[in-house]
Amino acid sequence: MPHKSSISVADVTIIDFRVIDLRFPTSLDGVGSDDMHTFSNGRGSEVICLCLDIFAERVIGKSMADLNANMGKTWRYMVSDSQYRWIGPDESVTHLAAAGVPNAILKKAQVGKEERVQDALRNRAVPAYSTSQGGPLMRAMLSSNSKVGTDLEADCARLAAVRDILGYDNGYHIMIDANQFKPVYIEEQTNPDDVLGHESIQKALKLYGVGVATGEAVQNWVTFKQLLQAEATDVAQIEAVRLGSVNECLAVMVMAKAFGVPCAPQNGAIRLTELTSHLSLIDYIVVSGQRNTLEFAENKRNKKYLKYAAEVKDAHYVTPMQPGYRIGYNKGCVENFEFPGGEVWRSEEGKRMTGGDKIPKL
Amino acid sequence: MPHKSSISVADVTIIDFRVIDLRFPTSLDGVGSDDMHTFSNGRGSEVICLCLDIFAERVIGKSMADLNANMGKTWRYMVSDSQYRWIGPDESVTHLAAAGVPNAILKKAQVGKEERVQDALRNRAVPAYSTSQGGPLMRAMLSSNSKVGTDLEADCARLAAVRDILGYDNGYHIMIDANQFKPVYIEEQTNPDDVLGHESIQKALKLYGVGVATGEAVQNWVTFKQLLQAEATDVAQIEAVRLGSVNECLAVMVMAKAFGVPCAPQNGAIRLTELTSHLSLIDYIVVSGQRNTLEFAENKRNKKYLKYAAEVKDAHYVTPMQPGYRIGYNKGCVENFEFPGGEVWRSEEGKRMTGGDKIPKL
Repeated sequence: MPHKSSISVADVTIIDFRVIDLRFPTSLDGVGSDDMHTFSNGRGSEVICLCLDIFAERVIGKSMADLNANMGKTWRYMVSDSQYRWIGPDESVTHLAAAGVPNAILKKAQVGKEERVQDALRNRAVPAYSTSQGGPLMRAMLSSNSKVGTDLEADCARLAAVRDILGYDNGYHIMIDANQFKPVYIEEQTNPDDVLGHESIQKALKLYGVGVATGEAVQNWVTFKQLLQAEATDVAQIEAVRLGSVNECLAVMVMAKAFGVPCAPQNGAIRLTELTSHLSLIDYIVVSGQRNTLEFAENKRNKKYLKYAAEVKDAHYVTPMQPGYRIGYNKGCVENFEFPGGEVWRSEEGKRMTGGDKIPKL
Repeated sequence: MPHKSSISVADVTIIDFRVIDLRFPTSLDGVGSDDMHTFSNGRGSEVICLCLDIFAERVIGKSMADLNANMGKTWRYMVSDSQYRWIGPDESVTHLAAAGVPNAILKKAQVGKEERVQDALRNRAVPAYSTSQGGPLMRAMLSSNSKVGTDLEADCARLAAVRDILGYDNGYHIMIDANQFKPVYIEEQTNPDDVLGHESIQKALKLYGVGVATGEAVQNWVTFKQLLQAEATDVAQIEAVRLGSVNECLAVMVMAKAFGVPCAPQNGAIRLTELTSHLSLIDYIVVSGQRNTLEFAENKRNKKYLKYAAEVKDAHYVTPMQPGYRIGYNKGCVENFEFPGGEVWRSEEGKRMTGGDKIPKL
């Protein structure tokens, strides 16, 4: 028998997989409180799980050595099934070109890399801000037109109260006069696919010194390419779990660098932060060389279930030192949060929450 | 009991539904032979079926009177679940604006409508062409560079033979010199999301009198709006089963009319033709007022299973006179073609075809 230490990750062959639908009841903590995140993408997860079942099949029988030898090739392999491409060609054949782009530009970022690695080792690579605690960069928050508060939190509370009274599905609009507060930028002003629409808005707002930030609902690098090409956004807000893995995030980062636009991954309270802190670290060390501020939000109630929970110290992310791009769960997590069989979802409170999923009246 | 004739469609209430995965082995007939249609969207159908199960739930308990009273409202209702929107905001909130657009522009198309209705009644509304039989408009087909045939069919046969030898998945490219043949247009030159890319290609080809036609893989009206805005396409090739129902097809038709671009629905051999013939008819009578040629292709082997199969006479579509936007299947269709339990798919030939679905080597 070989000595134990001679077995490396490269020798591991994937022989099986299991897709688990884990759902954290984030609405209980009011984290991720915009209407698209209230339930952290609750309904719809069954569709994603089916797709994971299908795509995970493709790596059965492959070794980690095979898969890691050429990540670009692996990525092309994962997205190249022509029949699955038909149902959403966001991952279509021209997608492949992205993989080749980084190499050329990444060279430039070598200057000063050693210093930036040192910054990372002392947790000074990724500045953090939080909408709940304040931070080095105040996120652009809009204030209600009728009555304006004296600070950010009061404004947020007032807007939330107004929206709670009006309801989210009753067709009421809230008009906000944001201009007088000179926000740094305004997020997601129109349909995420509408590059030319964003371009018009960006040009119009620029006259008032207000920026445009978009990207969290952008499907792929092709749309990011156009947003940058048209100078339609001032920040590239990539969404780590929407773009096709680290590869596609890297492609967008490199393009953003080429266009002189900062890349700020969209963030969420639980499990997304754990991925984006890796991305911003990579961005700082080998892509932009710039410290791009990354939002921080945590789910205090359920943080204990994460093996490698993201942490912030002195307004900077603590550099993740574990290899790999994943979260890791502690014992009890699956038992509690698997949907719909986990303890949380079988409890009275859990039933009440999913009961709220009833289909509204036409 | 009320008299039988007093019960109308409006009284029907939807109490249940069943999603059936019907797959026709179109590869046997060589229809729909481009690589994205070889299997008529075979793999991937399970994902679509799951989504249909989810969305069909929303109409349970509703009457046809409710649903038809205001189709715009019904459409908004179908696409407005915020959590499902998260997994693909192609159907996002700004989508709704599309529903209001048609009314304003449709008025103009009233001039000469009565004559066009008469054209429809004598089957002269929708001119047809076919890539296999020739027709009034020859589709732009490219000829192989090395040896050029004397006619369309010979060119197609030669290209197909070259591709068969090279294989589809071995990384071989076929270089084609199309310019000398002055094609009317070239289809789908780059990623369907890439409006600015299409714009560059359109401008460059225009100098040579060659047009650009795109749209069959375009996700939604937002991207069509941009393609038209940027003058990036000379034909709006809507895909009836990709856009969100007749409503969204209408929105694109109206925009195409406003930009002076013909709308030619993408077509396929079985079941798609049955929908697009309705769309082109509507386009002629109340939207563009122009006879926009529609491709025709039929699956002779399986046509007998369709209750209202599209037909062409004298190079024009026979106007469909049955109300509704659907296909209708004859007895034996489900028994034969349901996947994977139908007779065709359980047969040796069927197993051989799906056996070809094996995952390729990395």
